[in-house]
Amino acid sequence: MEIINLFKEAFYKAVDRAMPENVLPKYLPALAKGRLIVVGAGKAAADMARVAENHYGPENLEGMVITRYGHAVKTQKIKVIEASHPLPDQAGLEASKQIVALCSDLSEDDLVLFLLSGGGSALFTQPDGISLVEKTKLNALLLKSGASIDEINTVRKQFSKVKGGRFAELVLPARLVSLIISDVVGDDLSVVASGPTIYDEARSQDAIKILFKYGIYDEVYLDALEGDDARELYAVPDFLKDTDIRLENHLIASNQKSLEAVQEYFAKQGISSHILSSTIEGEASEVAKFQAAIVRQVIEYNQPFSKPCVLISGGETTVTVKKKGKGGRNSEFLLALALELSDYDNISAFAADTDGIDGSEDNAGAFYKSEFKNKLSKDKMIEYLDNNDSYSYFKRVGGLFVSGPSRTNVNDLRLIFVGD
Amino acid sequence: MEIINLFKEAFYKAVDRAMPENVLPKYLPALAKGRLIVVGAGKAAADMARVAENHYGPENLEGMVITRYGHAVKTQKIKVIEASHPLPDQAGLEASKQIVALCSDLSEDDLVLFLLSGGGSALFTQPDGISLVEKTKLNALLLKSGASIDEINTVRKQFSKVKGGRFAELVLPARLVSLIISDVVGDDLSVVASGPTIYDEARSQDAIKILFKYGIYDEVYLDALEGDDARELYAVPDFLKDTDIRLENHLIASNQKSLEAVQEYFAKQGISSHILSSTIEGEASEVAKFQAAIVRQVIEYNQPFSKPCVLISGGETTVTVKKKGKGGRNSEFLLALALELSDYDNISAFAADTDGIDGSEDNAGAFYKSEFKNKLSKDKMIEYLDNNDSYSYFKRVGGLFVSGPSRTNVNDLRLIFVGD
Repeated sequence: MEIINLFKEAFYKAVDRAMPENVLPKYLPALAKGRLIVVGAGKAAADMARVAENHYGPENLEGMVITRYGHAVKTQKIKVIEASHPLPDQAGLEASKQIVALCSDLSEDDLVLFLLSGGGSALFTQPDGISLVEKTKLNALLLKSGASIDEINTVRKQFSKVKGGRFAELVLPARLVSLIISDVVGDDLSVVASGPTIYDEARSQDAIKILFKYGIYDEVYLDALEGDDARELYAVPDFLKDTDIRLENHLIASNQKSLEAVQEYFAKQGISSHILSSTIEGEASEVAKFQAAIVRQVIEYNQPFSKPCVLISGGETTVTVKKKGKGGRNSEFLLALALELSDYDNISAFAADTDGIDGSEDNAGAFYKSEFKNKLSKDKMIEYLDNNDSYSYFKRVGGLFVSGPSRTNVNDLRLIFVGD
Repeated sequence: MEIINLFKEAFYKAVDRAMPENVLPKYLPALAKGRLIVVGAGKAAADMARVAENHYGPENLEGMVITRYGHAVKTQKIKVIEASHPLPDQAGLEASKQIVALCSDLSEDDLVLFLLSGGGSALFTQPDGISLVEKTKLNALLLKSGASIDEINTVRKQFSKVKGGRFAELVLPARLVSLIISDVVGDDLSVVASGPTIYDEARSQDAIKILFKYGIYDEVYLDALEGDDARELYAVPDFLKDTDIRLENHLIASNQKSLEAVQEYFAKQGISSHILSSTIEGEASEVAKFQAAIVRQVIEYNQPFSKPCVLISGGETTVTVKKKGKGGRNSEFLLALALELSDYDNISAFAADTDGIDGSEDNAGAFYKSEFKNKLSKDKMIEYLDNNDSYSYFKRVGGLFVSGPSRTNVNDLRLIFVGD
């Protein structure tokens, strides 16, 4: 099979490994004596809910999940509400309120199944101390401030009735099983959707520090963080600090698990492959330079791996957009990589987002083969890259990869084949 | 032995592998029937000349080499001239003129030994078409324009009587043996000191393109490039395109060779190590992020390498200085790496410049061990890094590594030990 087709197959293996219908069933607990309430939030929430519903039968459960606009699927019993992401809206707020109500006043015999995936933070939202409008404004300020996703979440949690483990607290004394598809690099479960079921140590002082660091001095936030209701005065939910059989958190899909599925696939094809890392972050073009340096080492010295082989990596890069071209982080990475390796033949590469959409266009990513060099000169490649116009480059050479939205997300898959 | 001491030993192995006295002798050709003329340029030129002089005996040769101010060593017969780097000066110009004179009008029986190392481009300089003042100004413009070193060299060669293979041409019909210590990432010999002995295909049109790209429109340069004497009208030195026994170029020391010496050293210590790449470039802190991602993969999953092991890498990173702290690219890399890996114990790392000077201070680089976390908090580390003040950080925790100038240079050595 041509290597590009192997890449595409590998991509679908990665996605399959993260699809709710493939991974959810084995984690679903037995029915409880009391009620089974299925709730959740995230881009995959509706699909996850449908799988749970099919597993237990609609007559045995009730519930509601919140997903992003356009991500609903048909369910029989569990209500699916669409709401805004990445900035929360009234629909998300209302639905979150209903989920909180649904999970309050439960008994020990009841079971709450909480289905979480990327995007859950904006979708499952219950402001505390400030209004939704104020919280939305704060989110926007943080997103453009340059704060890291960790920092943004630390602040968000301070203004939330459900995040940082507070949702788990309100479910008590019912049993809570949380099943999580991680789109957070490194799979820190306290970060996925701001960890509604994971105890968080951060307090209001940490949030104040972050706001100051990024020059956000609005009184409404600082007053809330310094007021009597601020999180530092809350009782620490002790039960969440200790392992407790009332609460289980399971990571059911992640970038790492998908990369391992890809490696298994290549092994079956008799192709040696190496997982460099599932936690690669940083500027897409810089990441490309580094991967190219390793590829050169393989080509020139058979170090640290012997040719032929595939280098697998994951994580989530970023693009600092300077020009008005089209393209996501994966196609930008791939064009930068192709440019770095344009002196070599027998190099093929692939990069795509497992959610099926790389940036703002309709492609999941792109693929590259050395033959593309004959279609457009190196100077042209530089021009496309300088314009952040990697989508147009790959469109022109015929290297776009379109899969359609996958309705799950475990971030990026990057593959480089170094031929003999 | 403590791992930090192993790192230091490894560094000296890397340097030893690039020292003229260790590598030059085996490449030195037998005496010719005629004269032996030893010439050269670069930071290691004086040391290389001394090794040649000791090998042949001062009575059997004559010659002159140009090195950087402060890099001279005592020789008996070969003249050592110090000149300015990275911007050329009158001293370099004068000495270059004498070298050109010395190598003109030779006979077939004569042998020219040309000793080249990093810095040679600015030191061995014979402007063509423009004055030295104009060429110096052009160099300065190019250095701050954002042009790559490849681009800078392409332009420089068009204004030179010796670069891009022209020196080899004027040595004819004498035999020429060029021994090269490469400080160019990837060891492209046409790039080390702008390749005085390597035929170059670039023509004046290529230089014009580069000047335009970086907004350099000065007439003096454009006129020279478009004039009758411009390189495009020169006859192509055909003999340089074909292999010719009158000309030999030998790469005698390089980052790759030094990394391999380091790997051999670790093997002797019974420690498994892996050379990621000898051609890593890019922003130091971004390179750190990427290497940290691989380290995390080793720690968490024993992929792509099993613990315990050392990750070896080389090349040359850059630092975009934003604040006024102290520190070179190696200490900046190391601090960024330490920050990325601050959640882990049993990580040690080392980064240093094989020339013995990392940036503007007196240290060759720095080392890091997990215990440093107890000396200064993560917040403090971030503060030092944000201020480009990595030197001060390592000074404070006791992690500076000082070796003194090595008088050779094959760029950077980075080592990361991942414990069990």
